Amino acid sequence: MAINFTPGPSQLYFTVEDHARKAFRDGVPSLSHRSSAFEKISKQATDGLKELLELPQGYHILFTGSATEIWERSVQNLVAESSLHFVNGSFSKRYHEIASQLGKQAHKIEVAAGEGFDSYSASANPELIALTHNETSTGVSLPLDFIHSFRDQHPNALVVVDAVSSLPYPKFDYTKIDSVFFSVQKSFGLPAGLGVWIVNERCIAKADQLQQQGVNIGTYHNLPTLIANAKKNQTPETPNVLGIYLLGQVVSDFLKRGVHTIRKETEYKAAILYQALQQHAIAKPFVQDKKIQSQTVIVAQTGAATETIASQLAQHGLQAGDGYGDKKKSQLRFANFPTHSKETYELLVDLLEKIK
Amino acid sequence: MAINFTPGPSQLYFTVEDHARKAFRDGVPSLSHRSSAFEKISKQATDGLKELLELPQGYHILFTGSATEIWERSVQNLVAESSLHFVNGSFSKRYHEIASQLGKQAHKIEVAAGEGFDSYSASANPELIALTHNETSTGVSLPLDFIHSFRDQHPNALVVVDAVSSLPYPKFDYTKIDSVFFSVQKSFGLPAGLGVWIVNERCIAKADQLQQQGVNIGTYHNLPTLIANAKKNQTPETPNVLGIYLLGQVVSDFLKRGVHTIRKETEYKAAILYQALQQHAIAKPFVQDKKIQSQTVIVAQTGAATETIASQLAQHGLQAGDGYGDKKKSQLRFANFPTHSKETYELLVDLLEKIK
Repeated sequence: MAINFTPGPSQLYFTVEDHARKAFRDGVPSLSHRSSAFEKISKQATDGLKELLELPQGYHILFTGSATEIWERSVQNLVAESSLHFVNGSFSKRYHEIASQLGKQAHKIEVAAGEGFDSYSASANPELIALTHNETSTGVSLPLDFIHSFRDQHPNALVVVDAVSSLPYPKFDYTKIDSVFFSVQKSFGLPAGLGVWIVNERCIAKADQLQQQGVNIGTYHNLPTLIANAKKNQTPETPNVLGIYLLGQVVSDFLKRGVHTIRKETEYKAAILYQALQQHAIAKPFVQDKKIQSQTVIVAQTGAATETIASQLAQHGLQAGDGYGDKKKSQLRFANFPTHSKETYELLVDLLEKIK
Repeated sequence: MAINFTPGPSQLYFTVEDHARKAFRDGVPSLSHRSSAFEKISKQATDGLKELLELPQGYHILFTGSATEIWERSVQNLVAESSLHFVNGSFSKRYHEIASQLGKQAHKIEVAAGEGFDSYSASANPELIALTHNETSTGVSLPLDFIHSFRDQHPNALVVVDAVSSLPYPKFDYTKIDSVFFSVQKSFGLPAGLGVWIVNERCIAKADQLQQQGVNIGTYHNLPTLIANAKKNQTPETPNVLGIYLLGQVVSDFLKRGVHTIRKETEYKAAILYQALQQHAIAKPFVQDKKIQSQTVIVAQTGAATETIASQLAQHGLQAGDGYGDKKKSQLRFANFPTHSKETYELLVDLLEKIK
């Protein structure tokens, strides 16, 4: 079977199939979510993630159905009136739209797809600042110092980071971030159907305050209900138990490998692919500015050669991801996740270099 | 490993593990949810369900994260002002609470846990009538003629049926019902993490109308967005692709067995267990009125002998479900789902009869 470079759902992490087999053998999928066996599974996943991401005290890990759900729940629970969104692609745009759909004053600072943001000086007074660390549609990453710069300018705002297709790669300074989220089918290489939402005490206080003011913060998945259950290592509803189990197992595999090693390998693989694209006769990196080139989703401008390149790679068992939306026929995207080995990336680069 | 009689998550349907193995082999968990391969998987599940449940034209099948989510989405999308809930246990109660939490005038007609409802005559004019077909907490089922009686009395209301732990057993007259929903970890014997929401055109029209009136009907999982995606055999977000695949496979297995056979076997198994409980020296059926005894979740009043009975069954590899909530130490619950074979039920009855 081909190695899948689509940026999500992507290639499964190579241990997942064995973990799933063990899960079925051990009866994990038919465990009650109110049993101590489930609580143990949930705790393994959340404790492991806290260690992997080096989260400080006071950060809580919550499970939802998807990261898309977290776009909605974060606005619903953390915004009474206004949010500010940095929009530079399809996914940051959708987050902004969701805030508008929920009836909030959703302000945005927008640049063209493929671009980053210049220096920003505070003007309005938003309650939530929404930053998409890694635009999966274009391969632009926001520099960490940009993300970390909002705390000082907006000490009262909650800084929320969509890190869907980047974590665990970025080494965030969590003292400058109130909430971060991802979905498991990207870098964690797991079957889709689970979102992971991390919040600090400031988020919880804000949701409590909105609830007291009579703002509609939702029901079973509002922040107070999620937190009350998470403190018992439970969830409000019957969750994707198998997904949470598999997450715990893969996080444990990542910890054995070491997050430092994962980061170094990610950078090595990104470097060789960007270099090959930079020197290529036909393809080139879509994002030119090195400061904002994503390390985890690398987008190639392939123009009229898109189909040729994709099919030549496919002949060697490598399935490139299509360009996103209207770039479907002029770009290719390459996920660079922990499951994509250095050897696979070296093969990808060799093959690309042969296409002239 | 023990056979699991807990009413959800319950014992997996016996084919699921093999289907999961094939899914991993075929790369299902890393399929893009925008690919034609996914659309085919989604269509197999929804076409199969339409056939299994004998749904008339104009009914649509939508996927959510859980049935709990459907409690919230149904109220959010179908109610501007008021709903009417029939409450006779913990789950019907929670549905009512969710409507209140969303700021609706949530009326209720409430009877004690374990009881059904007497004849009802229309008084108010609710937009949505919420009926819990099978109270998983107590083992009470509403008779089908009761569920079907609301259309005539409330022609303008939407009749919404929570059939979480009963479908595919009940043979509903869908011309009297506008929406029905379930989660896959009960009778379908699948890993948890997927809710199935069935709606007709009246529901869609109502959600469109609310949206035009400026009522907040949510974002990515509002009814218009779910429907627009479902028409393409897609979902708004990256869904639980593996769960949808497994649902399609198990529905296909059910179709081969025949829904008529499944219904007959369900009734046979329920009959022998209720009879054994009726004649038992220590245990007895919690629900005495035969007209409202659930065929799919059978609750035994076991009093002080609860632990003894559970442990004697466990010695023979049968894991009874605990009583729900404050009945944990005085009742046992037995799921009677398609995965629980006649032979297993005969063994259960034999063992129960030996306990005196």
